[in-house]
Amino acid sequence: MASPAADIGLIGLAVMGENLVLNMESRGYTVAVFNRTTSVVDKFVGGRGKGKKLVGARSVKELVASLKKPRKVMMMVKAGAAVDAVMAEVLPLLEPGDILIDGGNTHFPDTARRAKAAAEKGVLYVGTGVSGGEEGALKGPSIMPGGDPKAWPAVKPIFQAIAAKAKDTDGREAPCCDWVGPEGAGHFVKMVHNGIEYGDIQLICESYHLLNELCGLSPAELEQVFARWNKGVLDSYLIEITADIFGYEDPETGKPMVDLILDTAGQKGTGKWTVDAATDTGTPLTLIAEAVFARCVSALKAEREAASKLLAGPSVQKVTDRDQFVNDVEMALYASKIVSYAQGYALMAAQAKASNWELNNGGIALMWRGGCIIRSAFLGKIKAAFDADPKLVNLMVAPYFAGELGRAQHGWRRVVAAGVASGIPLPAMSSALAYYDGYRTARLPANLLQAQRDYFGAHTYERTDRPRGQFFHTNWTGEGGTTSSTTYNV
Amino acid sequence: MASPAADIGLIGLAVMGENLVLNMESRGYTVAVFNRTTSVVDKFVGGRGKGKKLVGARSVKELVASLKKPRKVMMMVKAGAAVDAVMAEVLPLLEPGDILIDGGNTHFPDTARRAKAAAEKGVLYVGTGVSGGEEGALKGPSIMPGGDPKAWPAVKPIFQAIAAKAKDTDGREAPCCDWVGPEGAGHFVKMVHNGIEYGDIQLICESYHLLNELCGLSPAELEQVFARWNKGVLDSYLIEITADIFGYEDPETGKPMVDLILDTAGQKGTGKWTVDAATDTGTPLTLIAEAVFARCVSALKAEREAASKLLAGPSVQKVTDRDQFVNDVEMALYASKIVSYAQGYALMAAQAKASNWELNNGGIALMWRGGCIIRSAFLGKIKAAFDADPKLVNLMVAPYFAGELGRAQHGWRRVVAAGVASGIPLPAMSSALAYYDGYRTARLPANLLQAQRDYFGAHTYERTDRPRGQFFHTNWTGEGGTTSSTTYNV
Repeated sequence: MASPAADIGLIGLAVMGENLVLNMESRGYTVAVFNRTTSVVDKFVGGRGKGKKLVGARSVKELVASLKKPRKVMMMVKAGAAVDAVMAEVLPLLEPGDILIDGGNTHFPDTARRAKAAAEKGVLYVGTGVSGGEEGALKGPSIMPGGDPKAWPAVKPIFQAIAAKAKDTDGREAPCCDWVGPEGAGHFVKMVHNGIEYGDIQLICESYHLLNELCGLSPAELEQVFARWNKGVLDSYLIEITADIFGYEDPETGKPMVDLILDTAGQKGTGKWTVDAATDTGTPLTLIAEAVFARCVSALKAEREAASKLLAGPSVQKVTDRDQFVNDVEMALYASKIVSYAQGYALMAAQAKASNWELNNGGIALMWRGGCIIRSAFLGKIKAAFDADPKLVNLMVAPYFAGELGRAQHGWRRVVAAGVASGIPLPAMSSALAYYDGYRTARLPANLLQAQRDYFGAHTYERTDRPRGQFFHTNWTGEGGTTSSTTYNV
Repeated sequence: MASPAADIGLIGLAVMGENLVLNMESRGYTVAVFNRTTSVVDKFVGGRGKGKKLVGARSVKELVASLKKPRKVMMMVKAGAAVDAVMAEVLPLLEPGDILIDGGNTHFPDTARRAKAAAEKGVLYVGTGVSGGEEGALKGPSIMPGGDPKAWPAVKPIFQAIAAKAKDTDGREAPCCDWVGPEGAGHFVKMVHNGIEYGDIQLICESYHLLNELCGLSPAELEQVFARWNKGVLDSYLIEITADIFGYEDPETGKPMVDLILDTAGQKGTGKWTVDAATDTGTPLTLIAEAVFARCVSALKAEREAASKLLAGPSVQKVTDRDQFVNDVEMALYASKIVSYAQGYALMAAQAKASNWELNNGGIALMWRGGCIIRSAFLGKIKAAFDADPKLVNLMVAPYFAGELGRAQHGWRRVVAAGVASGIPLPAMSSALAYYDGYRTARLPANLLQAQRDYFGAHTYERTDRPRGQFFHTNWTGEGGTTSSTTYNV
């Protein structure tokens, strides 16, 4: 048997895995590959991988034996039980100091659990987000690794070589990959990325709905609008592909393809997980929650068709000044997007606090700046905001974004009001506006809420004319009862 | 030692527990009581319980020994570890056929787990929601029992005797207590009750905010408005106490008490759990989610105070026709409330389906009709809607509620638009409207969403001109790639 020659081994040859392998190989690395169905290995090594520095392994043992030390094994299998199964096979074959990597869409608490199990054997565990779809995996994804920091020096050269590159705030090209943090921090940040993707997509859909229903814009006109937006503050991959989509005609019917697609969406785990993390940490993540729920509503197609005949709407008020309205919708999308990222960053801060992680906010923005689905020029502005103030409490109050929100708010309000008046559902845009207005309101009506809870449950309240931390109860009805009617500290 | 004489035993003598005991005793039952701190037992039996048919127990063993068979032991302790601890002590002392009841605010999966453990010893486990606060516990709470149905005949007489009574749709007085379902169904329904309570309260706060900011109504004027609303479609306990609260003056300062209360609210487990159940089952529960998040925003008092100086708002447009606006706000609150209950019932249907429960929708409305915090005339209309159509797919499309929504929508839209224009955050009202408009829209923009997901992830889509269940993929960019450009079934 030849001496171990491979720099890294990869298990799981779906398209994403194959493309990562080809990307690594193109950067000079020798990659060992294995797949449970071994015919897939043969087909890949003899096909797309032909003539490349690949080692086709017929077993996990063979894969591990082919690796230089410290060994690096990357699992690209379906999140969940499959990761545990592969890990159970690989871990006994590794030695202390070897590195086991999970590159799937794993729920971050699972990664923390597996990292602990690996550490007991001295194996360094890395859970990494990889975003960019099949194309990104091949040409340069966004990579968000976390786990055992001792693994970072060894995987850094490979990951940063294959990652997308983006212009940093200092003008230099930087890899869209950096160390995120311990335990499941990498997968957590990838999960938030996916949640934000839910929000971005929902906002684009609401914009489309408005322009289509209230301005009557055709797919061809929408293609123009989105192509133009892609040159402004909304410059991003998702806006770009939206323009492409509006321009695509069904080869069979010659009709715009978008008009032929059914309006029901599924939702996979990561959007839900992001909302669950928000409720776990008590973080108001309203926009992403509304985006997840909007997908659930879209799935109720038969109910909606029936309800459309039973529930009354207003008369639709068509827009008279199209150009103004298109600009207003751009501002509504933009401002809502700022809110969504502000909420996402607040969630990351809350989880970091709960998990005792130190997250590099600017670094995360740079990782998302290229390669991944939410990549955008906008993320460069976020990087700059955190460069200027790493301890920024909320993205919205960064001087740049506060200014942009102030500039955008008038169009944003006109658009939401137009949706409300004409019965166009804008769950994400209106929720974002409510959050913006709530966050900038020094005194909210929660004083009444506290009074109610004290009235029916003696839950006590704090007073505006007393120091924080003193709690008072009032006997509101004046009718005896078991709790004192005088104020007291709890 | 005397022969066992007690009809039921209760463990945990906080005010809620004491009041339940006094309620049971007043209905003719002899109640054995125990508390970990035994001095509490002495104080209660010699104080509020003096001269009543109570058995003060100095140990769990003594409590169990004092009970007639089949024994009924009710735990009124803090949800979580305390329930497990008490259960571990009680269960070994019980015989097959005895009944163990948890009357706390337990998370419903915990109840399912404990019911299973009890069943292994032949003990019948009941998890019951009890709502109504301290006063309700004494005078008649809403009681929502679930668990082992074999326990129901034995606990039914006691629970229905102590429960609140409300007028059913046939005009007869009925107890606000009925069997909910197996496993954790009782605690689940209580959890949804609490979630709905979050929503109701948030809607009242938003109404207050609007009337205060845009009409300049004083607490005294608000007292009048809410008292009047309490005679109309909003007739309910929470509206009633809101009027009381606005009328209450701080004895120290003579100022309206509500103005002196700090505007920061906490959130306990049940609101969060309700949202988690919604994401678990894929049910759009937008209003309650917004209400939970609104409490989180309220808690960010220092951030809001800082942001109020940094984030621009619009100029506030005061209302000119006060009477019209007050009526509009009433309609906005009413319509949003219909949406919230529709979402809550949809959540219950989804969980019932997932857990293979049969929930009695009308019965649940009747249980909530009296005794509990969300009690209202409105719930009588919900009972009637489910009486007329037990398989109603969504409460909004019941003829009565569809009509009410149609009548209310104009004022509702004017109010949300006013909030949007003047910068008053209305997360719950605007989210409810977006849900209403989404649910009554036969074609939503999720076709674009599906196109995007197919573009970047080859997730496939269905077509409007083909039968459901066929999935298609398009090679949008036309640039080679690894997936076929022709349509195919997945």
